[in-house]
Amino acid sequence: MKITFKPSGIEYELNEALTLLETAERAGVLIDGSCAGKGTCGKCKVRILQGKMGQLTDAEETALTDWEKEEGYRLACCIKPESDLVILVPGIHGGSTRKKDMTILPDDFVIEKTVVKTALQIKKASLEYQKSDADRILEALREKDKSFAALKVEFHKSLLQKIPEILKEKDENITLVIRNGVALDAEPGDTQEACYGIAFDIGTTTVVGMLWDLDKGKIAEVAARTNPQSVFGSDVISRIHYSNASADHVKDMQEKISSCFNDILTEFEEKANIKRNQVYEVTVVGNTTMSHLFLGINPASLARAPFAPVFCKAVNVLAEELEIDVNPNANVHLLPNIAGHVGSDIVAVLMASRLKEKAGCNLAIDIGTNGEILFAKDGRIVACSTAAGPAFEGAAIYQGMRAAAGAIERVTIAEGCVQLSVIDNEEPVGICGSGLIDAIAQMLDNGILDKKGRIISAEAARKADISENLIERLYNDNEGGGFILYKREDGENIVLTQKDIREVQLAKGAIFAGIKIMMCELGVKPEELDSVILAGAFGNYIKKESALRIGLFPKVAPENVISIGNAAGAGACMALLSDKERRQAALFAEETEHIELASHPDFQMEFLKAMYFMK
Amino acid sequence: MKITFKPSGIEYELNEALTLLETAERAGVLIDGSCAGKGTCGKCKVRILQGKMGQLTDAEETALTDWEKEEGYRLACCIKPESDLVILVPGIHGGSTRKKDMTILPDDFVIEKTVVKTALQIKKASLEYQKSDADRILEALREKDKSFAALKVEFHKSLLQKIPEILKEKDENITLVIRNGVALDAEPGDTQEACYGIAFDIGTTTVVGMLWDLDKGKIAEVAARTNPQSVFGSDVISRIHYSNASADHVKDMQEKISSCFNDILTEFEEKANIKRNQVYEVTVVGNTTMSHLFLGINPASLARAPFAPVFCKAVNVLAEELEIDVNPNANVHLLPNIAGHVGSDIVAVLMASRLKEKAGCNLAIDIGTNGEILFAKDGRIVACSTAAGPAFEGAAIYQGMRAAAGAIERVTIAEGCVQLSVIDNEEPVGICGSGLIDAIAQMLDNGILDKKGRIISAEAARKADISENLIERLYNDNEGGGFILYKREDGENIVLTQKDIREVQLAKGAIFAGIKIMMCELGVKPEELDSVILAGAFGNYIKKESALRIGLFPKVAPENVISIGNAAGAGACMALLSDKERRQAALFAEETEHIELASHPDFQMEFLKAMYFMK
Repeated sequence: MKITFKPSGIEYELNEALTLLETAERAGVLIDGSCAGKGTCGKCKVRILQGKMGQLTDAEETALTDWEKEEGYRLACCIKPESDLVILVPGIHGGSTRKKDMTILPDDFVIEKTVVKTALQIKKASLEYQKSDADRILEALREKDKSFAALKVEFHKSLLQKIPEILKEKDENITLVIRNGVALDAEPGDTQEACYGIAFDIGTTTVVGMLWDLDKGKIAEVAARTNPQSVFGSDVISRIHYSNASADHVKDMQEKISSCFNDILTEFEEKANIKRNQVYEVTVVGNTTMSHLFLGINPASLARAPFAPVFCKAVNVLAEELEIDVNPNANVHLLPNIAGHVGSDIVAVLMASRLKEKAGCNLAIDIGTNGEILFAKDGRIVACSTAAGPAFEGAAIYQGMRAAAGAIERVTIAEGCVQLSVIDNEEPVGICGSGLIDAIAQMLDNGILDKKGRIISAEAARKADISENLIERLYNDNEGGGFILYKREDGENIVLTQKDIREVQLAKGAIFAGIKIMMCELGVKPEELDSVILAGAFGNYIKKESALRIGLFPKVAPENVISIGNAAGAGACMALLSDKERRQAALFAEETEHIELASHPDFQMEFLKAMYFMK
Repeated sequence: MKITFKPSGIEYELNEALTLLETAERAGVLIDGSCAGKGTCGKCKVRILQGKMGQLTDAEETALTDWEKEEGYRLACCIKPESDLVILVPGIHGGSTRKKDMTILPDDFVIEKTVVKTALQIKKASLEYQKSDADRILEALREKDKSFAALKVEFHKSLLQKIPEILKEKDENITLVIRNGVALDAEPGDTQEACYGIAFDIGTTTVVGMLWDLDKGKIAEVAARTNPQSVFGSDVISRIHYSNASADHVKDMQEKISSCFNDILTEFEEKANIKRNQVYEVTVVGNTTMSHLFLGINPASLARAPFAPVFCKAVNVLAEELEIDVNPNANVHLLPNIAGHVGSDIVAVLMASRLKEKAGCNLAIDIGTNGEILFAKDGRIVACSTAAGPAFEGAAIYQGMRAAAGAIERVTIAEGCVQLSVIDNEEPVGICGSGLIDAIAQMLDNGILDKKGRIISAEAARKADISENLIERLYNDNEGGGFILYKREDGENIVLTQKDIREVQLAKGAIFAGIKIMMCELGVKPEELDSVILAGAFGNYIKKESALRIGLFPKVAPENVISIGNAAGAGACMALLSDKERRQAALFAEETEHIELASHPDFQMEFLKAMYFMK
């Protein structure tokens, strides 16, 4: 049987009885899914364009709307192809980094020359100058660069293997590459200017690579990809369960990330016109699960109390060992984790935000697939993690989606009108995190939603003199009804359901409760809070007033809510460009106090309180 | 076609037109050869027991005696099988280490605890003790062994991958393996006592492995193999030429040594009942060519002036990278070389002989396949290499052979009688180095050989009143005749030819001339020489008086000629057991002054003078 995936046009010959999701995985086609094929999340919808499929499964009966059923939508995880098929995979625009997602390094950050490339003229050996090739290279280096005069430089074995070939070149001009006292490569001629490094930020959802021109000290290119592990679930817990099933799964997860890195590398080669062999240094950040999987370490212990990771400290590995196709001798530096659910991405946020150095009481929140919080006061830092994020990335939200084309990203309700701003100005197909927060804040301000999070009934709305235009948008069903944000001609309206609002309440309640417990731990009163720093793409797009309105964090003046962009990525860049920052990161990871919310006695009570929408 | 090799019984199916030598190589059967298949050395004799072969080639007509031709001997490199064959490969007993070849470490040598294995009880993680596995292991280590309190310990990636599996064990008792601040492995339970290291000495002819029990600080087993590169030539120059022909050849040479190490490892597993995974450290010495090939580096530059090697300094590589099947994270330390033809084996001799520390003027000679010389005076050391060795290992000697069963190792001529001592008391089949030197010394003392190295004629012998028994042993042919050492019933007498004596003159002349030039360099007069240290197996078996008689080195009292056994191997062991000695080796390699005899203005003259046999 042949399966053709549209719009990519990828074809796959199938001999076994695999589900369409598994087939897509083998064919290298990414289909979104949060439940790792259990048939419960309903995210892996595909449309059958040609070919026949059997009856709908129970899971599909529940997950698909009538319209979807008519149009031939199925859940890829539920069905096995029975004939040749042509299927349409709905677009996942994950990884489209919008302009605002820039990597902003702190003003006081200083780039060090970590990788040194030096062009050298090597004196030929003679009976009077009978030194080894390596020693003549070192002598030339020391003559040219006095800073190496007293330093020990070791030659990597694979460089030694290469030297006889390189020194064959007529003029004996070579460029030596040195990192941390190890000569890791040499190239014929003068290639000093071609010196690159990459900082990777492995998000649960998106993997971002930042290519640095180490010679000029400038960022050269940024590229992103949907994390290919997504087919095994959109959240870390699904991926941990999948990984723990067999050692092969762990290996698979590891290889998926390496090949994602290599994809990004290919894009850099094309766009920035670089040679992958001239990437000499790599840094990596990610949450603790991503860090474990990146190294091929089973993260099972992160899914059960006491959530102890296998390792926290920074790890250095040769690129070759991880099959990352940069220079094989490039060092890959994975930044340290703080705890089981507070990873090196949060250490990177700490680095990029300069949170510890700020005067007063300051808070940093990184809402990605999880929500991690840092609180600093007088040089003391506490950290915690809340299972809050997925809602703001569209997971568990009925028509939730990532910040991609067709996502509602802004909602304004005024004078009975609902105004929407949609990414790429397309017809809305769903709602992303910033739109979700806006919608809820606006619904609260317009009286459509009460402080307990209940959508008002039409009758109550009329009593409260709410505009008929808005009342028309209210609808009822046996799941608690909802509010119509956009009416599509095909009748598939974009709505915010009562259930969606409950999800947001759970998420924001968890974050707020976490913050309260941290403030209590540090003895900070709510009015003492000086600033709230928002890290991550989410922070860039969120409307501060809306976030304040729904109570995502304690009240501060809107001007003290500061977005710092992809701070995790920025921290990874800082570690790429400075060993001092690397040492600082190690210190941060060690001294940050971790609070495990799950076992905190006050958490449950604070959580219940924080779910309300107080003015 | 099927080729059966006797006595091993190995069978090989052949589809291509390969020479018998190439076939043997593929079948893993070692056939000796010095000329790398050029048909010039005549060493690769095999006997066809069954099957037909074509006409003798010109090379075979020259190389084989009439008796050999009758008995069906052929040169394996000259012929290609035309039918099924059963062939007999004459025994190469290379690698049979006799008892005397012991590894003797200097009296003042102190073993360090380089690899540390510590049994630990790991406290389970809890919500109150929420540390990572790695941090809990470190904490247990620091509690048990205070010396680690302030030390940084890094976990190797592959160990991190293993930890979740190891800590599953109920009792959480593990043994951690640490080397140089890197935790390289962990094992369930208490395995402190199983801690091994291997020192390898890669000789051109023989590879010796010495297994050390690092826990008890005792040598556990010694094993040796013929260097499997021998099929590509018995001397380094042949092997360099073969390697330089293609990158694959270099790789092949490298793999041959690794698989030889692995063979030795298998023997250790069986004999010493160890697990190869519990070998955590490896040191290696060898001449500069062997060192290059061991790392897969093309040694081409060593075969042409100015003989500059690719590298000299010590190199550290993970065992895994070289496919040596000890613990994959074991560090393999290759000791530093001094120059293109003075390798790490000579640095090891310097270490084991304590030459530099000795009072006065002292000389060390290592005669293996090459002859390297060290001369020390007042803390200054000079080194040189002479192309002298092969003669004493049997190469270029008509019936020369290595010190193996059937080799004449002692010769006494007294009162007209020739008394022989043969290894393993077998009927003589050839003569090895010590026998050769004895024979010449005795022939000189008995007037059969004159100081110019000419074997006396029967007439002249009669005039000089030499015993008729001895005169009977003189024979003539068109190659200068010779002296019969042993009369075999099959008529294939064991003889010493005039040509053999010329070979010895060339060899001993080169060594003596080298010594003279070094003494001149250091301003030492012959009578100032305090001792001559003989390193290598050869030194153990040589009769001091005979060596002095033929003028292998300047005159000293026989009691000042000291054999120190396999000093190269001993040095490798010292580096295995002590980082201090490793640092010392690095210093030795740097400060030793190398004299290139080939380009020395006085060498030719000294060489001509030194060929005489002066009393």
